[in-house]
Amino acid sequence: MAEIKYNITQHFGTLSEGSKGWKKEVNLISWNDKAPKYDIRDWAPEHAKMGKGVTLTKEELIALRDMLNKMDL
Amino acid sequence: MAEIKYNITQHFGTLSEGSKGWKKEVNLISWNDKAPKYDIRDWAPEHAKMGKGVTLTKEELIALRDMLNKMDL
Repeated sequence: MAEIKYNITQHFGTLSEGSKGWKKEVNLISWNDKAPKYDIRDWAPEHAKMGKGVTLTKEELIALRDMLNKMDL
Repeated sequence: MAEIKYNITQHFGTLSEGSKGWKKEVNLISWNDKAPKYDIRDWAPEHAKMGKGVTLTKEELIALRDMLNKMDL
């Protein structure tokens, strides 16, 4: 697979920290020099490796926020 | 890769609908008969195919909700 170029534009915070220091983070990331998207993903320490995750547009993130606020958590 | 067994226990909603009917959904999913986890993921129509996504524990989902509520979206 071709190497993916990415740049973490903004770091909003960490949702959890797991084994071996992997963290589930919320960031704004530019992939391959495209416009940055919101991103929820597991990261190894120092962002040395990335795990699976999901990218979201601003509209999707707002929809997610509104959905979570209606859920009984 | 071995086939993954999953069961969508609860569907909370759809964040967006993209090309060819793929939807970004929030579900509670049991993977390989384990305890269900929250899941944000793209799905083809009828859940025929799954895209990349992220699974979260209840604690991570609450942290995400609180983080989103503090963000200027």
